[in-house]
Amino acid sequence: MLTLIEFLAVISGAIFGVLLARRKQMDFVGVFAVAFITSFGGGTVRDVLLDRHPLFWITHSHYAVVVFVVSGIASLLPQIPRRIEPMLNVPDALGLALFSVVGTEYALQSDVAPFVAVLFGVITGTFGGVMGDIVCNEVPNLFRPGTPLYATCAFVGGWVLIGTQAAGFPPDTSRWISAAVVVVFRLSALRYNLCLRPIGSPE
Amino acid sequence: MLTLIEFLAVISGAIFGVLLARRKQMDFVGVFAVAFITSFGGGTVRDVLLDRHPLFWITHSHYAVVVFVVSGIASLLPQIPRRIEPMLNVPDALGLALFSVVGTEYALQSDVAPFVAVLFGVITGTFGGVMGDIVCNEVPNLFRPGTPLYATCAFVGGWVLIGTQAAGFPPDTSRWISAAVVVVFRLSALRYNLCLRPIGSPE
Amino acid sequence: MLTLIEFLAVISGAIFGVLLARRKQMDFVGVFAVAFITSFGGGTVRDVLLDRHPLFWITHSHYAVVVFVVSGIASLLPQIPRRIEPMLNVPDALGLALFSVVGTEYALQSDVAPFVAVLFGVITGTFGGVMGDIVCNEVPNLFRPGTPLYATCAFVGGWVLIGTQAAGFPPDTSRWISAAVVVVFRLSALRYNLCLRPIGSPE
Repeated sequence: MLTLIEFLAVISGAIFGVLLARRKQMDFVGVFAVAFITSFGGGTVRDVLLDRHPLFWITHSHYAVVVFVVSGIASLLPQIPRRIEPMLNVPDALGLALFSVVGTEYALQSDVAPFVAVLFGVITGTFGGVMGDIVCNEVPNLFRPGTPLYATCAFVGGWVLIGTQAAGFPPDTSRWISAAVVVVFRLSALRYNLCLRPIGSPE
Repeated sequence: MLTLIEFLAVISGAIFGVLLARRKQMDFVGVFAVAFITSFGGGTVRDVLLDRHPLFWITHSHYAVVVFVVSGIASLLPQIPRRIEPMLNVPDALGLALFSVVGTEYALQSDVAPFVAVLFGVITGTFGGVMGDIVCNEVPNLFRPGTPLYATCAFVGGWVLIGTQAAGFPPDTSRWISAAVVVVFRLSALRYNLCLRPIGSPE
Repeated sequence: MLTLIEFLAVISGAIFGVLLARRKQMDFVGVFAVAFITSFGGGTVRDVLLDRHPLFWITHSHYAVVVFVVSGIASLLPQIPRRIEPMLNVPDALGLALFSVVGTEYALQSDVAPFVAVLFGVITGTFGGVMGDIVCNEVPNLFRPGTPLYATCAFVGGWVLIGTQAAGFPPDTSRWISAAVVVVFRLSALRYNLCLRPIGSPE
């Protein structure tokens, strides 16, 4: 079950990366590199900062092949229909939930304080997209107002995990509850266009 | 004393990050992320490159809470008066001095050659701002001519540390002298607008 | 012999970094930082991801001094003649070959699957330039169509290394064959302007 979600999340991360790279009219090297960074960036930053080795995509080496194949298929298509993006909302929300719960747990295992552990969950769930945007020379979408809540969902989910664990829930129940909160919160944010307001003003 | 300077440096790093993010009209997620990267980026790069774990902001987990609170307060203000920036010059110069001296010492402890140890001091003192600029899609301010000397002050301070140590000064005296050199050099650069000249020409 | 090629590759990486920074009219701090990132970025990312410490430029600390001297000399010149760029093609191709073969081998030593090991070779050979472009606020040249094959040469070379090893060639023969393939492929790509086609379309 977890493996299936992880697999779906990697594929949906790769497709987001491909769409981003296509918008910049990159060649195949660029498409694959951006898909790779978008899929694996968040978990890589988490593992490097927590000193967890070998990295998850070195251990599960077939993920890199999956991203390569997705990039290859997507590069052969002359056009990718726009309606694929909304179809990615559910697998992406599942991936966000999975990565933020797993990221928070890994950090807790490394004796990290709760607030910092929640940040690790957020980093794991979101930094792939942030790094993809940076490589494509964009201000990260995640940091801009007018986009539905994303990091916030992972942040809330991390606290639900810690709260339910502290309340004595069995580990698995605690994981499922917090993952469900992330998924429901994220899909609601998309459905009702929940955004944070912009702060500050241009120069 | 060191703890107080470190605390002030984290706060002033966070405020610089907030000001940068506000100029880009980010939302709270962006403001916090940029403040976090600006405050902790330099030390994180140093620790990852030297393989020092756990990272300092994982050990001192209250720093992350401090940056969160600073970002929160700054996000509630409709405007941040411009005159706060010059007020940050002194805490920022103290932070630059502290981070470059500590960074150089950590590197020397890891048996790094003097020249490379000095570079680690410079990286620790300056890379937070560089990474904040990259995330905000700017050419790093630090690399542009017309801005008062900053990395150069950390570079000189690192050599003063190594020189005074080699000359047989007691460790604490050596630290204070080199930190004082960084602070005086940086504040003079601001006061007299000492800059490096531009190199090369646009295409 | 290997040491000579590595030395030439570091110098040619530094000169590419200097040329990039000059185009952006940076000051000396920027020129040195970009030259440093361009020369050492690929190997650093490889070593951090594979958890190989100390990093190669910490062990071989004279390389950092070499980059500093190259940056210094290049900063004193009022102009760098354009015809230096084609002169860098051969040392750069040698460096690409060396770094991609060495990167693939290091990864194989860390028990990485073949496909991922080849990617490590590509990362080692190419990520310096990618990171230099990101710091200079450009979409990485490597990812753009219309530039002669570069990452692709390293990718093919990595597979030749693995194939010849699997076919039972002695280790050294295997290394020389794959390095020669990278050099010949890269110089042919430059000579005949072999490029990948663009994918996707602007928004």
